[in-house]
Amino acid sequence: MKEKIYEPGECYDYQLTLDKLLRTPLTYAPDREIVYRDRYRYTYRDLIERIHRLAAGLSAIGINKGDKVCIFDYDSPRYLETYFAVPMMGAVMHMMNWRSSPEQIMYMINHARDKAVIIHEDFLPLLDEIWDQLETVETIVVISDGGSKYHTALPIDIDYEEMLADASLPHRFPHIDEDDTATMFYTTGTTGLPKGVHFTHKQLMLHVMSETVMTGSYHSIGRFHSNDVYMPITPMFHVHAWGFPYVATMLGTKQVYPGKYEPEMLLKLIEKEGVTFSHCVPTVLRMILSHPRAEDVHLQGWKVVVGGSSFPVALAKQALDKGIEAYDGYGMSETCPLLCIGNLKPHMMEWDNDRKAEIVTKTGLPLPLVDLRIIDSAGNFLPHDGRRTGELVVRAPWATRSYYDEPEMTKELWRDGWLHTKDIALIDNEGYVTVTDRLKDVIKTGGEWVSSLDLENCATQHEAVAEAAAVGIPDEKWGERPVIMATLKEAYRGKIESDEIRNFLRSFVDQGVIPRYGMPDRVILVDAIPKTSIGKYNKIEIRRIMEESCI
Amino acid sequence: MKEKIYEPGECYDYQLTLDKLLRTPLTYAPDREIVYRDRYRYTYRDLIERIHRLAAGLSAIGINKGDKVCIFDYDSPRYLETYFAVPMMGAVMHMMNWRSSPEQIMYMINHARDKAVIIHEDFLPLLDEIWDQLETVETIVVISDGGSKYHTALPIDIDYEEMLADASLPHRFPHIDEDDTATMFYTTGTTGLPKGVHFTHKQLMLHVMSETVMTGSYHSIGRFHSNDVYMPITPMFHVHAWGFPYVATMLGTKQVYPGKYEPEMLLKLIEKEGVTFSHCVPTVLRMILSHPRAEDVHLQGWKVVVGGSSFPVALAKQALDKGIEAYDGYGMSETCPLLCIGNLKPHMMEWDNDRKAEIVTKTGLPLPLVDLRIIDSAGNFLPHDGRRTGELVVRAPWATRSYYDEPEMTKELWRDGWLHTKDIALIDNEGYVTVTDRLKDVIKTGGEWVSSLDLENCATQHEAVAEAAAVGIPDEKWGERPVIMATLKEAYRGKIESDEIRNFLRSFVDQGVIPRYGMPDRVILVDAIPKTSIGKYNKIEIRRIMEESCI
Repeated sequence: MKEKIYEPGECYDYQLTLDKLLRTPLTYAPDREIVYRDRYRYTYRDLIERIHRLAAGLSAIGINKGDKVCIFDYDSPRYLETYFAVPMMGAVMHMMNWRSSPEQIMYMINHARDKAVIIHEDFLPLLDEIWDQLETVETIVVISDGGSKYHTALPIDIDYEEMLADASLPHRFPHIDEDDTATMFYTTGTTGLPKGVHFTHKQLMLHVMSETVMTGSYHSIGRFHSNDVYMPITPMFHVHAWGFPYVATMLGTKQVYPGKYEPEMLLKLIEKEGVTFSHCVPTVLRMILSHPRAEDVHLQGWKVVVGGSSFPVALAKQALDKGIEAYDGYGMSETCPLLCIGNLKPHMMEWDNDRKAEIVTKTGLPLPLVDLRIIDSAGNFLPHDGRRTGELVVRAPWATRSYYDEPEMTKELWRDGWLHTKDIALIDNEGYVTVTDRLKDVIKTGGEWVSSLDLENCATQHEAVAEAAAVGIPDEKWGERPVIMATLKEAYRGKIESDEIRNFLRSFVDQGVIPRYGMPDRVILVDAIPKTSIGKYNKIEIRRIMEESCI
Repeated sequence: MKEKIYEPGECYDYQLTLDKLLRTPLTYAPDREIVYRDRYRYTYRDLIERIHRLAAGLSAIGINKGDKVCIFDYDSPRYLETYFAVPMMGAVMHMMNWRSSPEQIMYMINHARDKAVIIHEDFLPLLDEIWDQLETVETIVVISDGGSKYHTALPIDIDYEEMLADASLPHRFPHIDEDDTATMFYTTGTTGLPKGVHFTHKQLMLHVMSETVMTGSYHSIGRFHSNDVYMPITPMFHVHAWGFPYVATMLGTKQVYPGKYEPEMLLKLIEKEGVTFSHCVPTVLRMILSHPRAEDVHLQGWKVVVGGSSFPVALAKQALDKGIEAYDGYGMSETCPLLCIGNLKPHMMEWDNDRKAEIVTKTGLPLPLVDLRIIDSAGNFLPHDGRRTGELVVRAPWATRSYYDEPEMTKELWRDGWLHTKDIALIDNEGYVTVTDRLKDVIKTGGEWVSSLDLENCATQHEAVAEAAAVGIPDEKWGERPVIMATLKEAYRGKIESDEIRNFLRSFVDQGVIPRYGMPDRVILVDAIPKTSIGKYNKIEIRRIMEESCI
């Protein structure tokens, strides 16, 4: 690493940069393995050499400090290599959500002004489609999983592995400041153009440290420690895979990368490699638990952070009953992401799974260094009484400083010096945050607010219901009225009528869980609920369908 | 807290300041207790209110941002309150080593330009002695443990508890930058004037985070977590009690402060309050283990970081055999202090206690973010082969940036941009650092170096030896020759001759553990070995005595 020359008596100006994370695994566990599917495995020593080779290779093809490098890949050790090599060069790692539409991808690459693209061969058709509209990309590096060679008209410059093999070592990294940008990506909502968020080295480092403390040093279930075997089941393009690849690397855990998500392969890897710590969205956890092979795989003690959308109590109960230590993780693209986890407090450790499931599915307790508040529509702080709901606002060292090149949207995000999450939440007197809804999804009926998440949570407690999405549709008298779109579990399809679900919901009204005015007017059963590219309910589309079906 | 008013669109400029540590205990464990001896106990809610009261009280007596406040106290919850309140005001907490001589104390208070002194009544005679030579102190606040009132001619301004009781809340703290100085103290060696070191909020915060990760997230013995009961047995004036009061507070553990160290009281508190995590110097651990009451107290599972001077293997073995999870902690005044701990690696967890004792007594493995190297006398990096020894140099985010107001000594400390520890060490290929000696204590004989620590470690393995100090005394032919001063355990006093210890040492020469030229010329037995104010061997004095006894 290129070092500043120090004058006598000048203290070293220590910078919190990502390269610092690579020191502990080299002393702790240099021979621990990093595994890719059933394809290859290598050690931390190899990882570090490959990071240096990747940086040398990218330098050789003209990537310099400040340049943006766009990555399209499944969860893989190569992706992990870019997590370090690109920022360590002073370049910016742009993680691409390859589930986006070609138009969105084109917009994001042009808006970020990416200079190079590192892309897994499976995604070449996506790039092909928009290639002639890209304005800044000079170089394409292709990752191949071997097997048959890819066919494309794109001007491929170099193969990833060839680039590493040809790299000349030692590579001298430039001096990086902790406030230099390390990573960026776009958040693609259901409306409007994608918005770019970006994070500095210092932000990522503080996020790593706090996340490690939160998952490692509090007495709860699901502790993440250096002897775990880590496997992400969240795309690595998705908000740094929640930061856990950095945590795992600092701790020197064995790491397993599953490539393209296939339930069979995931279960095989959990079993064969002895995976003990993962993170995923509720849908993926449900998919794994309901897979026919799940019965044969030893899942007892598997620790899973569940995030991305709200964690249904029924699913948590199912996981806990299987001996899986599952708990909620909450955050957003704008916050690096982690803000809260559904940690149990010591006095809850002996509770039964029904009561534990109520806690671990909460949005959770804030991480060290995170300041979370709820505010009313006038911006006043609301009490943490477990009753009043308001918009959740946050201050954390790792909150994005702006939307990239979007001053107007940044103003809205950072109104009054607080990052506005656009989530509606309550905070109880134990400090647990519960997000009750998205600001835009909350159903406004007769001057009252009804939480769409509450309705969904009640609906999925019916044994036949697989998924449920609640939306408000326009109503002349009440402003909006709640309705529900649901899917049934396979065994129940065609055997259950929507009325039964409504009757089931009425029991929650009788118990006072759902307010009387919150009782959905209609439940419709469908084969599949429309989702966004990252697997969340597409409420705009759902609302459209529900309105149409009403006519 | 006084807050900057933010314009729309301006992101919050998050500062890593110590107040941020008080958030997690308030959500996690607001009713957990903080205990002082058998005197009083209060909750985290009370702690936080008292921190606000202390700041308000200090403001009322004229303490402002940038002022220095000197503290003389035993380990107590009040000391903990100053750990937060003083830096949160933007003032600097000057921790006073009350074991120093009155002349040193006078020098330190004048050199630091302390504006106020907060002092436990037991130390008033010390202050009395130098009062008319103090140049800057305007206010004296006295801490009383109750009982009989203190008698002094000093112009006492206010009683600590009265000041808190009279404080008007809410107190508005000023805006603090993370690079503002939070704490300072002096390191008093055996020669020369005391040197001041100082630490910013950011440095302390990064030290806390890394220390928490190192003791909480690596799979080893001695994990520190939120359900522990913490009791320091290192003076809180001594390098922030190694940072652990800050860690304990962030984690919301129950905290027990023992006041003046009395073995009986320490054992009583361990038993009664259920203490599970502590830190101390080897002498204190030995004192506790050899106390007659130690047999009755349940010490199984007690976790103890042992530092301050080298941790003898025999003592570690004794602790491990009692089921105590003891391991070395290494650092220095200039480094906040923690740099390494003697963590076991996973494959060592099943070893027997003899082998474990060899590892946990090593200087240890570096904390995350710490870069440690060994250099030869020309400043070249030496290989980590477990054989070559050189001076240990360090880069860490929490290394002091200078000796306070001492540019020449700072130059020596930070030569070539590395902090020079003046410790001689080797690093093995597992990454374990072993300090073999102090640069100034290493015995230079016939052109070779002999480690005084190695000799001491061998000598204390004799069952009769309690403590042993090795020094080099001048020799015309060889430059220096090693000699040893030792004390015997009570049961052996008068029953063992020094020749038996020499014969015992000769067996280490035969095994090749001590080089032939390292065999001490003489061993003398004494009743007590001279020590410095913080309990380390006073080698200057020992050398003088050994030389004289030679004539």
